[in-house]
Amino acid sequence: MTRSLSLGTSNEKLLLMTPGPTEVSGRVIRAMMRPAIHHNDPRFVKLFDETEELLQKIFRTQNHVVLFPGSGRVGMEASILSLVEPGDKVLNVISGVFSRWFRDIVKRHGGYSVELNFDWGKSVDTDKIAEALEADRDIRAVTVVHSETSTGALNPVQEIGRIVERHEAVLIADTISSMGGVDIPVDDWKIDACITAPQKCLGGLIGLSIVSVGEKAWERMAKRKTPADSYAFDLYKWKQSWFPKEKGGLLIKGRRSFPVLPPTHVTYALNEACKEALEEGLEKRFRRHTIASKATCEALKAMGLEIYPDESITAPGVTVLKTPQGVDDANVRRTMQNDFQVMVAGGMEELSGKTIRIGHMANTAEKSCILRTIYALGHALNLNGHRSDVDEGLNRVLEVFKEA
Amino acid sequence: MTRSLSLGTSNEKLLLMTPGPTEVSGRVIRAMMRPAIHHNDPRFVKLFDETEELLQKIFRTQNHVVLFPGSGRVGMEASILSLVEPGDKVLNVISGVFSRWFRDIVKRHGGYSVELNFDWGKSVDTDKIAEALEADRDIRAVTVVHSETSTGALNPVQEIGRIVERHEAVLIADTISSMGGVDIPVDDWKIDACITAPQKCLGGLIGLSIVSVGEKAWERMAKRKTPADSYAFDLYKWKQSWFPKEKGGLLIKGRRSFPVLPPTHVTYALNEACKEALEEGLEKRFRRHTIASKATCEALKAMGLEIYPDESITAPGVTVLKTPQGVDDANVRRTMQNDFQVMVAGGMEELSGKTIRIGHMANTAEKSCILRTIYALGHALNLNGHRSDVDEGLNRVLEVFKEA
Repeated sequence: MTRSLSLGTSNEKLLLMTPGPTEVSGRVIRAMMRPAIHHNDPRFVKLFDETEELLQKIFRTQNHVVLFPGSGRVGMEASILSLVEPGDKVLNVISGVFSRWFRDIVKRHGGYSVELNFDWGKSVDTDKIAEALEADRDIRAVTVVHSETSTGALNPVQEIGRIVERHEAVLIADTISSMGGVDIPVDDWKIDACITAPQKCLGGLIGLSIVSVGEKAWERMAKRKTPADSYAFDLYKWKQSWFPKEKGGLLIKGRRSFPVLPPTHVTYALNEACKEALEEGLEKRFRRHTIASKATCEALKAMGLEIYPDESITAPGVTVLKTPQGVDDANVRRTMQNDFQVMVAGGMEELSGKTIRIGHMANTAEKSCILRTIYALGHALNLNGHRSDVDEGLNRVLEVFKEA
Repeated sequence: MTRSLSLGTSNEKLLLMTPGPTEVSGRVIRAMMRPAIHHNDPRFVKLFDETEELLQKIFRTQNHVVLFPGSGRVGMEASILSLVEPGDKVLNVISGVFSRWFRDIVKRHGGYSVELNFDWGKSVDTDKIAEALEADRDIRAVTVVHSETSTGALNPVQEIGRIVERHEAVLIADTISSMGGVDIPVDDWKIDACITAPQKCLGGLIGLSIVSVGEKAWERMAKRKTPADSYAFDLYKWKQSWFPKEKGGLLIKGRRSFPVLPPTHVTYALNEACKEALEEGLEKRFRRHTIASKATCEALKAMGLEIYPDESITAPGVTVLKTPQGVDDANVRRTMQNDFQVMVAGGMEELSGKTIRIGHMANTAEKSCILRTIYALGHALNLNGHRSDVDEGLNRVLEVFKEA
């Protein structure tokens, strides 16, 4: 595979192996080389609609997909504030930093959080989720994070979808660091609000929230007793003023109007990134991420390092390893960044200092990027007093890619 | 003045004379020709800090300036939800569509709106504002729109600032379509939260909210009894986790962290646009907008058209004219756009069909853009059955620029 990350105009050397943002192609950057355009210009509206359709293909959904200025977190918040009314009970499935954000967001908007905590990095017990829903029929929504970027674990959203489907509750899933890197058939999995962002496995740039909204979720919004506590991010406005009747919206006459201005140039970039993904072919792309994940895990183990999450549930876009005893991870990352020009991320909150996080997403889920990361990490560990066999790691990467 | 709007890569012909978004320079677009970068990369943090400093110069303020993914409306909403608690009384000075948004935003967040309505396009009576504040000491905030883009009127924010200063209330001002086009000395005018966006007189791209926050506003946030009803847009988080102690923040140790991810490439564009503005010189830039506004108004009058707002208070970045009797403004705009490749905007809500709005902001506040707009409008009116003397209009533009 030849995959150019170069713009031809930059002397950039740093390789972004953080779990988002990740490298984007020159083609995606060049897609922004267009003049300012009015959001209501028919050409932009057409591109915006096309972007929705491209995302529907990647999400494998017939649901509406909305885009608005933001980030992953803003998409999570827009979903909660649109679907949850003050006092509503929300079951928050928590096993890491990002799944805990949902709890905090629910509280900010006056919802009542029912926490269901699981050990971080371990598999979520779906029986417990089923029990919680059976035990409390007042639960109005369930939140789950698919790829928990703080721990590197992938949660069983499909199974959770089957459980939630039998209840009144809507399923709100954060697929921010997995969408585009692994198959997430949103309709099949019964995800009522599915959130992602461009700067991870989709290979786009920071600046947008992406949320797919299904019929059960629209109905929930239609039946609210109180208005959502946001003017710009009340998702129901998209149904009311953006989607025309023939596309399942409520707009019968008058001009379609954006509930909040779309960032035109970041949308250009996302549009191009989606095209790249679909041109590559989703199956091929998902497989590439699976191999990248396997190669990274295997290489780390070959170097005597430990993977943080259960190995049966490692996420396709991010590998989290335990910082070896006695090693200062900040020093390791500094060496990697300053000498080897490879940027990875440290642990978050409780895992600060205890883990190192490597992203292999979109364009970086491939052999040469992983080789470069492995030798940078291995040498940096050696330089920081922890012996690790870099050659073993590199060989393992090559083997995994050869076997694939 | 030679001002290139061309990218050298585009065959774009359409001239954006809408009151935002407006044309940006090739230099601003090219500033985005950089690879993906991590928001915590020291180079990006440095550029982000620099952008704040550039904006402080344009705002003429010592206050903090924060940037986050959004639009003008998101900045308005972030200010309200951060400064207003449920039940708080807010005096909404209303004289157009955008000033009315503030009322709707206040209501969404559980505030109590005290409306002070003035005739659209007329000067706001500041005595009435003073009286309202004297009459009700419980008013916690006053909202005002500086350049009311829906009517083309400029409101006396300086005078309002002097009045509000004497009270407990904070002053929240929308300077979205004026900042960068006219002098707004934020500190001198006592604006506690001053909101703008890049895609107007600053000459940047859609995708960011910009808000300056002063000490009185930070204190108000510090003393809240209830948490703000937003996770991503609670502005106080910037004080807590972004600004270090030596810069007036509360962060004593630990890494500065963004309360919400900044859209990296739109920030690049804004940074470049601010540099362009400051390199031009603010006085020169403001004068350019004043002349552009005058030339547009005078030309329209010379063609027998009427200006919508009082002529003594026309906004520097947008001119609103009354649609002549019997003319379908949508047809006129269609002719302008399709044949002359000039895009202007129609009226909003109550003014739909009744007005046409011309933006002359940032790069388009100059002679050739205005000449092109005037002949496109004049000819389009003629083609749509309304006689107007285009030559008179064009001559008037040339005269105003010659006199200037």
